[in-house]
Amino acid sequence: MGKPLNIGLIGYGFMGRTHSNAYSQVTHFFDVPYTPVLKTVCGLEEDKAKAFAEQWGYASYTTDWRKVIEDESIDVVDVCVPNNMHAEIAIAAAQAGKAILCEKPLAMNAAQGREMVQAVEKAKVANLVSFNYRRVPAVTLAKQLIDSGRLGRIFHYRANFLQDWTISAKVPQGGMATWRLDVKAAGSGVVGDLLAHCIDTAMWHNGRIGEVCAVTETFVKERLNVDTGKVEPVGIDDACTFLCRFDNGSLGNFESTRYARGHKALYTFEINGEHASIAWDLHDLHRLEYFDHRDESIVRGWRSIHVTDADMPYMDKWWVPGLQIGYEHTFVHQAADFLSGMASGKPAGPTFREALETQCVCDTVLASAAERAWKKVSY
Amino acid sequence: MGKPLNIGLIGYGFMGRTHSNAYSQVTHFFDVPYTPVLKTVCGLEEDKAKAFAEQWGYASYTTDWRKVIEDESIDVVDVCVPNNMHAEIAIAAAQAGKAILCEKPLAMNAAQGREMVQAVEKAKVANLVSFNYRRVPAVTLAKQLIDSGRLGRIFHYRANFLQDWTISAKVPQGGMATWRLDVKAAGSGVVGDLLAHCIDTAMWHNGRIGEVCAVTETFVKERLNVDTGKVEPVGIDDACTFLCRFDNGSLGNFESTRYARGHKALYTFEINGEHASIAWDLHDLHRLEYFDHRDESIVRGWRSIHVTDADMPYMDKWWVPGLQIGYEHTFVHQAADFLSGMASGKPAGPTFREALETQCVCDTVLASAAERAWKKVSY
Amino acid sequence: MGKPLNIGLIGYGFMGRTHSNAYSQVTHFFDVPYTPVLKTVCGLEEDKAKAFAEQWGYASYTTDWRKVIEDESIDVVDVCVPNNMHAEIAIAAAQAGKAILCEKPLAMNAAQGREMVQAVEKAKVANLVSFNYRRVPAVTLAKQLIDSGRLGRIFHYRANFLQDWTISAKVPQGGMATWRLDVKAAGSGVVGDLLAHCIDTAMWHNGRIGEVCAVTETFVKERLNVDTGKVEPVGIDDACTFLCRFDNGSLGNFESTRYARGHKALYTFEINGEHASIAWDLHDLHRLEYFDHRDESIVRGWRSIHVTDADMPYMDKWWVPGLQIGYEHTFVHQAADFLSGMASGKPAGPTFREALETQCVCDTVLASAAERAWKKVSY
Amino acid sequence: MGKPLNIGLIGYGFMGRTHSNAYSQVTHFFDVPYTPVLKTVCGLEEDKAKAFAEQWGYASYTTDWRKVIEDESIDVVDVCVPNNMHAEIAIAAAQAGKAILCEKPLAMNAAQGREMVQAVEKAKVANLVSFNYRRVPAVTLAKQLIDSGRLGRIFHYRANFLQDWTISAKVPQGGMATWRLDVKAAGSGVVGDLLAHCIDTAMWHNGRIGEVCAVTETFVKERLNVDTGKVEPVGIDDACTFLCRFDNGSLGNFESTRYARGHKALYTFEINGEHASIAWDLHDLHRLEYFDHRDESIVRGWRSIHVTDADMPYMDKWWVPGLQIGYEHTFVHQAADFLSGMASGKPAGPTFREALETQCVCDTVLASAAERAWKKVSY
Repeated sequence: MGKPLNIGLIGYGFMGRTHSNAYSQVTHFFDVPYTPVLKTVCGLEEDKAKAFAEQWGYASYTTDWRKVIEDESIDVVDVCVPNNMHAEIAIAAAQAGKAILCEKPLAMNAAQGREMVQAVEKAKVANLVSFNYRRVPAVTLAKQLIDSGRLGRIFHYRANFLQDWTISAKVPQGGMATWRLDVKAAGSGVVGDLLAHCIDTAMWHNGRIGEVCAVTETFVKERLNVDTGKVEPVGIDDACTFLCRFDNGSLGNFESTRYARGHKALYTFEINGEHASIAWDLHDLHRLEYFDHRDESIVRGWRSIHVTDADMPYMDKWWVPGLQIGYEHTFVHQAADFLSGMASGKPAGPTFREALETQCVCDTVLASAAERAWKKVSY
Repeated sequence: MGKPLNIGLIGYGFMGRTHSNAYSQVTHFFDVPYTPVLKTVCGLEEDKAKAFAEQWGYASYTTDWRKVIEDESIDVVDVCVPNNMHAEIAIAAAQAGKAILCEKPLAMNAAQGREMVQAVEKAKVANLVSFNYRRVPAVTLAKQLIDSGRLGRIFHYRANFLQDWTISAKVPQGGMATWRLDVKAAGSGVVGDLLAHCIDTAMWHNGRIGEVCAVTETFVKERLNVDTGKVEPVGIDDACTFLCRFDNGSLGNFESTRYARGHKALYTFEINGEHASIAWDLHDLHRLEYFDHRDESIVRGWRSIHVTDADMPYMDKWWVPGLQIGYEHTFVHQAADFLSGMASGKPAGPTFREALETQCVCDTVLASAAERAWKKVSY
Repeated sequence: MGKPLNIGLIGYGFMGRTHSNAYSQVTHFFDVPYTPVLKTVCGLEEDKAKAFAEQWGYASYTTDWRKVIEDESIDVVDVCVPNNMHAEIAIAAAQAGKAILCEKPLAMNAAQGREMVQAVEKAKVANLVSFNYRRVPAVTLAKQLIDSGRLGRIFHYRANFLQDWTISAKVPQGGMATWRLDVKAAGSGVVGDLLAHCIDTAMWHNGRIGEVCAVTETFVKERLNVDTGKVEPVGIDDACTFLCRFDNGSLGNFESTRYARGHKALYTFEINGEHASIAWDLHDLHRLEYFDHRDESIVRGWRSIHVTDADMPYMDKWWVPGLQIGYEHTFVHQAADFLSGMASGKPAGPTFREALETQCVCDTVLASAAERAWKKVSY
Repeated sequence: MGKPLNIGLIGYGFMGRTHSNAYSQVTHFFDVPYTPVLKTVCGLEEDKAKAFAEQWGYASYTTDWRKVIEDESIDVVDVCVPNNMHAEIAIAAAQAGKAILCEKPLAMNAAQGREMVQAVEKAKVANLVSFNYRRVPAVTLAKQLIDSGRLGRIFHYRANFLQDWTISAKVPQGGMATWRLDVKAAGSGVVGDLLAHCIDTAMWHNGRIGEVCAVTETFVKERLNVDTGKVEPVGIDDACTFLCRFDNGSLGNFESTRYARGHKALYTFEINGEHASIAWDLHDLHRLEYFDHRDESIVRGWRSIHVTDADMPYMDKWWVPGLQIGYEHTFVHQAADFLSGMASGKPAGPTFREALETQCVCDTVLASAAERAWKKVSY
């Protein structure tokens, strides 16, 4: 068993659960140089924080995030709060010399993100942004296939992230369950929440995006804000589509919405190269679709790869071929890589610096939509 | 254009339409040594025969099938009547020196089938039984892949033919639309109508079946007979499943029913070999699924082959890659092969003799079900 | 049988075949008020025109399209030549009082299209543009479902048309087989060839597009021109993606390319409404995917509708449930509707006037890409 | 948190891992009346037992299973050893008053199973056999849909369990990794290992099987036995197919093999009722396919239900809609139900008594194959 590593989790929402699960599970399946110890959890409401601590086995709880930072025994601060709190907490954690695992998107905007990058780099602390979908085995496999050169010159990259949970005008904004609809807490709508994932994966797979042209729409113009009790204008983007050019000359097409009836979390991407293409979707995350034009013509077709064999990324750690893993495993993989990176000196990605690039694209997408014009991305 | 060949069609039902269409279309797409001429159509009801002749361009019509046989100008007799009439008509046609294209199953039973084989072989007339699914391009491709040896030793063959059109007890038996439910006209139920297709394809792909063990069931015990106007016991099998051993040592599993809600004509087969497997289904007939274990492991998966490229069987005759053909094209391919076989002396299959083997298996399946015992097939 | 209607076909290429097949088949399956008579076919090379006439049963052939127009016995002129010849031929045909069935896109540009509309409206001749995909039964069904109001308010419409046949730089431009790559003959690349289909269907389904923002790319910059024998710059768009807003407030996302490895003719669309969504793709054209949120939650899912039952559009004319039709049937349906429309006075769509709207969007898409700006569509 | 419940795990193989994971995870996601405490793990090799204990957090380890039974602090004995040890251990555990969770199949044969049932019933200890697939949410949902009566009268039930891991003759028998190929340890091949799952689910869904007719095959006749170091005859069935009749009048068709190239763990079932059908497969375990004939005909189709919404069985405990769980979660659900059943007095199934019925069918299947005859099942 690896050396103990004390975790301080800030935020006990959906992401707090996925991260806690990852720390609980990682040593059961991976040989990691550190053993995470669930030291403390922090959240706004004491009774909930207490219940969360009990359920997951945190040794303590608090409602004041600064106490987590001040706690010298804490080695890692894990930031799972709404986006508008990322920068303040992460910068404080860096200054206190903590390693930091921060939920995505990195920040409310690139300017804020840059401060965060400076803070962690100045403090020389381990840092990672939780773009967990990189660590779906099929998505990691896609990265390997692309990097192997099998696809040849890339012509197209397209990605969608489609949901349908906000179609009803009765869904409120604000509060713990729906802060993602409140622009003050979230910064943006689908751009930061969903497209950020697509952009992170896309640039990991296909290199930098050079310029974008976007459109956004807010279909439901006002919603009850559960924090204020008032019906307020909706400040986030309900949907966003953008065109782009990658630096490698390929064209990109990205779309996200929370108004695509029938899709709960349909994150899909497809990349088309000269020789081969790859496609994936989150609703069947254990499969990767692969087409190779160099196959003999009479047996050429899209291959549905059931990514469960032991030679697939991460899959030697789990069960036997044919038996699929699910969503939460991406966070277990992330924890394993983060811990390994801390020990090896080759940090797992995306680091804050790398995630800042996604933030830059998000900012440019929003600016492009506002200005109705093509915009170059400044990194 | 090839030499004219006069067609006499007996039976203007569903199969009469598919065969007429094949004769109309074959010269538009295939270079064939004969040009079919729609000379006469024969059916029980004069007004319907007349209307059919007009719609398809037959030069004449009759209600007496013997007149077709007696007509010296007729080159090919095409038998599209209920099963209980196949033998009498085909034998008469053979004796009159006509080439014969007969709908499946060959006969009411193997004894009758043997007489038919003797008749056509004695008369040395061209003969073919319309097991049309052999000529779905994907099914022909499967044959080529199997024959190429890619699969290695064969372990399993399984086939289903699932329908749901007779679940209602209100569906009658007898008459033109529902003679398939009347044992006097059809001889059997799903065995002759549906499993015969599965068996024909299976033995074409995988060689002879040596022994079988079957179960049959008739879920609706009596139905109105529209010929007699009386409610009568149902004599056919509504469903049949059988196990078998092929002569090559592989195991077979076949099932057919008209009580599988949600399936209209779901003919599927799968063959598992040492190295590779193949699967197909009629509801997406333009695709073939292929798995090759020799593929590199990280890109190994079932390939969904869209069988539309020009190097696929028959597909150079149709449109462009990506554009699918449908059901009726199998009959056009059959007509093309039949005509070519007549000219070349290498007859298209299955000939009556070949189709008799399927009849032998069908008889053995029915006997096995009746006797509740394994039965060897006598060919 | 309906009254004879003499057809003069101009162009014996791929589309000449699909239209000839439609005229041959339509009376076998549909009760139509006219019986098409294949009177003459016109093409550039005499031997090919002659062979085509023989194969399809045209009574005569010519190499001079004006002779078709001048032939008083001709009732319908069917225009299947490259795009740059549509206007001249169609206008002459209109002036000669012929009904006109013209391949898509209507014209080289909207200005030319407007002249064509004026010509047919002045002459009061029947006219139709062959946007054949409207008449895939599943696509027609989608129209019915949308028009029934089941989807509620529409939020998104997205369509792709992906091919991969021009990835190799060795594919030439010009000539009979590859005129679609020559800007002089085609006017544009994927915009006029493929996106025109997507736009036609989209506006039929979802109403007018108000404004667009597009990007185009030409991946292979020069190709051998087989007409001139010289390597020449490629003037067409190899790929085009555009964003748009429909007049009903929904967002659109359209993409087409001939560089999407693994896709031969993958025309797909999806429409997301408040209550329900619909998706379709051409590679399995006999299916329609439908999701209805009002289904009971525990059995709610995307329904894969096998569009083969007799109560589906056009399908009562073909075979039995479960048996699929293919690509060419769309042209048979088109012929049936065109003939019926001529008799009833309710013309089948899209007429030249309706197809002009698609041309207007195409022009605006190209302009938007050239100017890198959002553009309003002028109809 | 529930009352502590001390677990003694016997067997640290594949199933030992899945059960350990279940005990670790269950309190993180479910409100259960007991909190499992990982007290001791037992296995043959001391170093492996020690390593396993460390990895999963067991407080102790042993190589003598009797010590687990004798340990008075142990509340639950979890039996994860090869089949030939189930009876001896379970009976001893029952006699010692322990609750027992036993891996499937219950026993080497029904006679042995009956002794086990008597032992647990005499001792009145909680008991459960780990037919984990009942607790795939989609499979549980299928049970609910069937029990609701939506399907109407049942006509057909078919199930397959297809693998391909023993095709190579180089795979040995015996030892820890391949005891399933050694008849002395496993009792049978696919019948007890795989068909037992299919039979358990089938009888849970569709009631008792009355009679069966089976065939078995052993394709590779001899293999190296790693326990003896000698090449020995293979005593297990490599493949088995059987027909059956259920007591409710429906027909069954079951097949299992380890020689179906391309399938790793393809457990599938389909049930066809008068009104509706259901299908499922383990390779996409988070989906259930449902067809309801009572749907309006133009929107009728197979529904692919993504079983991730909170109103699906067990799914309110996990993440958010659209995010799938995987294989190991079935064991977590089983642990939750087992613990709840211990507290409530309504034991979770299948109990030993219920699992004995599956054992009876397995025995009859093997006897039928040996005798080549239909056999009634004695329960």
